[in-house]
Parts: sequence; structure tokens; C-alpha cells
Amino acid sequence: MKILILGGGGMLGQKIANELARSGGLNRQAITELHLVDAIAKPSTPESAPFNVTSEIQDITAPGVCDKLVATRPDLIFHLAAVVSGEAELNFEKGYLVNLDGTRNLLEAIRLVGDGYRPRLVFTSSVAVYGGPYPEIIEDDFILAPLTSYGTQKAIGELLLSDYSRRGFVDGIGLRLPTICVRPGLPNKAASGLFSNIIREPLVGIEAILPSTKDVKNVFASPRSAVGFALHAASLDTNLLGNRRSLMMPGVTASVGDEIEALRKIAGEKIVALIKETPDPVVQKMVSSWDWPGFTSARARSLGFKCEANFEEIIKVHIQDELGGEIPGLTSH
Amino acid sequence: MKILILGGGGMLGQKIANELARSGGLNRQAITELHLVDAIAKPSTPESAPFNVTSEIQDITAPGVCDKLVATRPDLIFHLAAVVSGEAELNFEKGYLVNLDGTRNLLEAIRLVGDGYRPRLVFTSSVAVYGGPYPEIIEDDFILAPLTSYGTQKAIGELLLSDYSRRGFVDGIGLRLPTICVRPGLPNKAASGLFSNIIREPLVGIEAILPSTKDVKNVFASPRSAVGFALHAASLDTNLLGNRRSLMMPGVTASVGDEIEALRKIAGEKIVALIKETPDPVVQKMVSSWDWPGFTSARARSLGFKCEANFEEIIKVHIQDELGGEIPGLTSH
Repeated sequence: MKILILGGGGMLGQKIANELARSGGLNRQAITELHLVDAIAKPSTPESAPFNVTSEIQDITAPGVCDKLVATRPDLIFHLAAVVSGEAELNFEKGYLVNLDGTRNLLEAIRLVGDGYRPRLVFTSSVAVYGGPYPEIIEDDFILAPLTSYGTQKAIGELLLSDYSRRGFVDGIGLRLPTICVRPGLPNKAASGLFSNIIREPLVGIEAILPSTKDVKNVFASPRSAVGFALHAASLDTNLLGNRRSLMMPGVTASVGDEIEALRKIAGEKIVALIKETPDPVVQKMVSSWDWPGFTSARARSLGFKCEANFEEIIKVHIQDELGGEIPGLTSH
Repeated sequence: MKILILGGGGMLGQKIANELARSGGLNRQAITELHLVDAIAKPSTPESAPFNVTSEIQDITAPGVCDKLVATRPDLIFHLAAVVSGEAELNFEKGYLVNLDGTRNLLEAIRLVGDGYRPRLVFTSSVAVYGGPYPEIIEDDFILAPLTSYGTQKAIGELLLSDYSRRGFVDGIGLRLPTICVRPGLPNKAASGLFSNIIREPLVGIEAILPSTKDVKNVFASPRSAVGFALHAASLDTNLLGNRRSLMMPGVTASVGDEIEALRKIAGEKIVALIKETPDPVVQKMVSSWDWPGFTSARARSLGFKCEANFEEIIKVHIQDELGGEIPGLTSH
């Protein structure tokens, strides 16, 4: 089984690569090759994979690149490459180029291989395909009415994925990811970063700025769950999807206040005290516009996609997977 | 006020042009220029318009064409140009080229004019953006999950229209048209043609073939209503739309059996006897796959979009607008 990961240098791409290296196979098939591609930098390769791993910088928006990437006929493609929300809003042309044209280049390259080639394509979409006004809870047949260019591009990607799948050119599945939290690594200035920053930094004994009010809500899943979604999608029987090839993944709906309470239970008052409220009206406006209600994610759950049950579990997963089971902030002084 | 009609040679484009020529203005503004463009043939121009009318063959998929068409800064653009459902399904590349790339070319051309140019753009979408499984009645926030490439391309057009409008590049409104019935002109072999054929042909004393069963349903509006939708959209206060720029137009849900009963009431048994049942499994499969349930079209109705109340009215409109108020079939023998 040959696997290609586009966006293989990103957080999710790297975690998927490492998990594949650990398991050595997928769906009872041995992996023979893993090819990691990223436009930004050459992706790191897993340290001890029981199969051949290659890695390169390639830009899927450049002519001929996707054709070359699929010429070796990977059986499974993870298409994670994207310009993120904030950047797609700031740079209109770049967002459409990467998120729409890049995705279409990939689908066209796959179609033009012909000759019965029909790889499984796992496409990461986003909760950003939704936009208000919302009902109290979002069912699986709720309209996609995005309020950002990023969400628009992801929704278009989903439509293309369904049509190319229906026509038999590809075997696609789209995953509408909740906000991934706790994101490991350095704090970033993306507005959605605050949901991770206020957990990750205090746990290691560093102050974190909370630029929003505590009532701001979002829907979350851990990086471990996101990897699980992608791998489950890679081996799912897609006949169960019908023509609606994209699914809202399960997530935990929580407010910033809920996050802080969960942190208090797990790590105590001293850690919570490291969160400093510093209101920023720009961030506040942005994050409160994402006021997603709850999602049933009924189809995804019935198809076996799983996430944490509450925000405490999300924090515990972070402590296990990123901090070796310890809370450094408790012992750092 | 300068007006551009893309797809100006089609049935709807021609009827809109004639109505504009009759009224001379729109929304209390005088029309100064009307430019009709079509890719197939040079559109006919209205006989006695109180403004300048120009007409030409142009293909919006050719490089630079859209830029040229918007360089004169039309205040109002009707974008009706499309490869229809059957052809987009048969010719995958042509459908995407015209319906997706053509629409994107137009939006990009408008955006790149810049300098505050922000025309009203009336885009004809279609009930084909919907696909089953359906609830009993479709509300305005029902998911767009098309089951054809045509429906996919129209849904993508809607998403682009909303995003370009939100970003302030255009002032767009999308109209999801029901099946337009009774279509004037010669019978055609498009599967949806049967809904018009079985009314239009008998009314002029000609036999019509019914290739489907009578329980097949569809949602209909007359050509007169379709012109009304387009002109109402051209002068609507789009602030009332929020970010969901496309609306399911009102329509009359009726089965073939309902159509025949309406024809019987209006034109009698002798006319109905001209409908010959000749089952065609291919047509049957296609039309029964469109099994739309009813639509509330609540937003469109609340915004003042109007259609006929029942199928009898649709037939009466056809007799008035296309047959001079007479039923030739009643006197032709």
C-alpha cells in the first residue's frame, strides 16, 4: 500500500506519518511506501518506519506537480494542504489558489490517470464550512453557508470531492474537523490559538494571555482524535457514505470558561492563575463570530468516528501525548 | 443604467430582454444600454426598445472575454449562461469549464475592475443543487448535496457568489429556479422536457409522448414567473439577504398526474387524449431520481418572490403568453 500525504509537514501530517510508522500497516494491509509533500519546508520523516519514506517540497498549485505526485498511483492520499483561515481571509488570491485550485488540480490529476485508478482520498475540511444563523443544534443536513473565504473554499472542495467520487474518479471522504486543541508547539497569533494557548502554556508553568471573554465557545477535538479521524476515514467502507462524502466529525463543545474549569480540576489553582485576562477587541470580535452551537455529528458517530467526551479528557490527552504524563508547571518553581 | 445579459440568447434571456424593452426601466431607473451576449448564436434584440441594444457572440470561458464584457461597468448583470444538466453530466469537462470556470471568470473580472465597482449580479442557480435523501419538506437551511455535476457546479457558483458579495466585490443574488414549465418552442429530448411537452403539444392539437409514469413529481414555475424572479432580484434590497445570497424560488409541486388533471380542467378530454403513454425506462430512471419533495421557499416568499398557486395557473399563463389566449387544439380539427 502506497500512501501520499499532502501537507505532510504540518502538525496533523506529521502525527499521521508517525502513527503509520508505528503501526506499519492500515486496515490489515502492509504499507510499502510513504511519500510526504509540503509546500513550506521538507517534511520530517518518522524515525523508524518499517517501510520506505520519501519527503519533498512541492507546491500543488504549480502546473504538473499533482500529475507527477499521482503518477506512481498512491492507493491512499491524505490531502491536508491548505492556507489557513486567517491567511485566506487576508490574502484572497492565495486562499483561492491553494485551497480551491490546489484541490482541483489534485482531483483532476487523479481523474486524468484513468485506467481504473481510483484512490482513497481523505480530505480535511473544517467546521468553518458552517455559518450562522444557527439552529440550537446542527444536524448533518444543515446548510453549508460559510462566513469566511476559507470556509467557502473548503465547502467547494467538499462539493468537488462528492462529484468526483460519484463519477467514479476517486473514492473520497471529507472530514469537517473541529478546532484541534490542545495544539502542541509554540503559541501562535492565530485567533483560534487562544483556546490551546491558555491550556498549553500554564501546564508548563508559563503565563498565557486570554484576549477574549470566557463565554466564547468552540467545538474541539484533540490532535490524537484528529489522527484517529484521518486513519478511520482511510479504511472506512465508503459505500456507507452515499453521495454525501463529507462528515462533521464529533467534537466537544466548550466555552473558554469550561476550558478553565477543566484545567482547574486537573492541574489546580496555581496553574489556572497563570492565565492573564487581557481583552483584545479584535480577537474578541473574530472568535465570537465563530459561535458554533453544538453538533450532533450523528453520521460520523454512527460510522465509528470517536473523540473525547469532555474538555478534561482533551487536557489529559495533551498531558499524555505531549508532556510524558507529567505537569511540568506544578514542579517548575 | 447599463445592463448585461450573459446567456442572452436563451429562452429566459430573451424574455428578460423583451420585458426590459417593454418597461424601459427598472426600479425607477431608466435603462440606457442593454448588451446581450451568448456563446451559441448572436441573440435576437427586442424589436422596439427605448434604449440602445447591442448583441454579440462571446464565450465567457475564453481568456479576457469577461474582462472585456465588464470593462464598460454594467450596473446590472444577469448571468444565465450555462451548460444544462444533461450535457454537463455527459460532458464532464465542458460542464466544469462553462459552469464553474465561466462563472469564476466573470466574478474575477468584476473583482479586478476594482475602484468601487460593485454591480448587481443575478445568477440563475437551480433546484438541482439539492439531492436526497430528503425530509418531507425542504426548508431554506437544508444542505446542498447535489446528485449531478450540473448541480455541483451551480452550488459552487452560489458559494462563490456569497463569498465575493461578502468581500464587497459584487452585489450578488442567486435564484434556485424550479423546473420552468410550460417551456415554449419545439419539444426537446431533455428528460425534463416531458413536463412541458405533455401540455404544450396537446394544446396545439399535436400528440405528445409521455415516457414516464404519472406519479413522477417535480417543482414548477412558468417562464413568466422566472422573468419575474429575475427582475425582482435585480431591484431587491440585498441587505435583506445576509450572507446567504441564494434563495430557493417558490414553485408549484405537481406530479405528471396533477399536470394531466389540470390540463383536463382547462382544455377537456379531447386534448388530454393526445397524450400517449410510451414508457421509456431511461427517462423514467432519470426523472424519478429528481423526486424533490415540496419546498417552503419561505425566505424567497417573504422577500416578495411570487409564482403561480397551482398547475392550472401555469397552463393559463402559457395560453395567455404563448397562444394569444386561445387553445388551437380545440379548433384544429
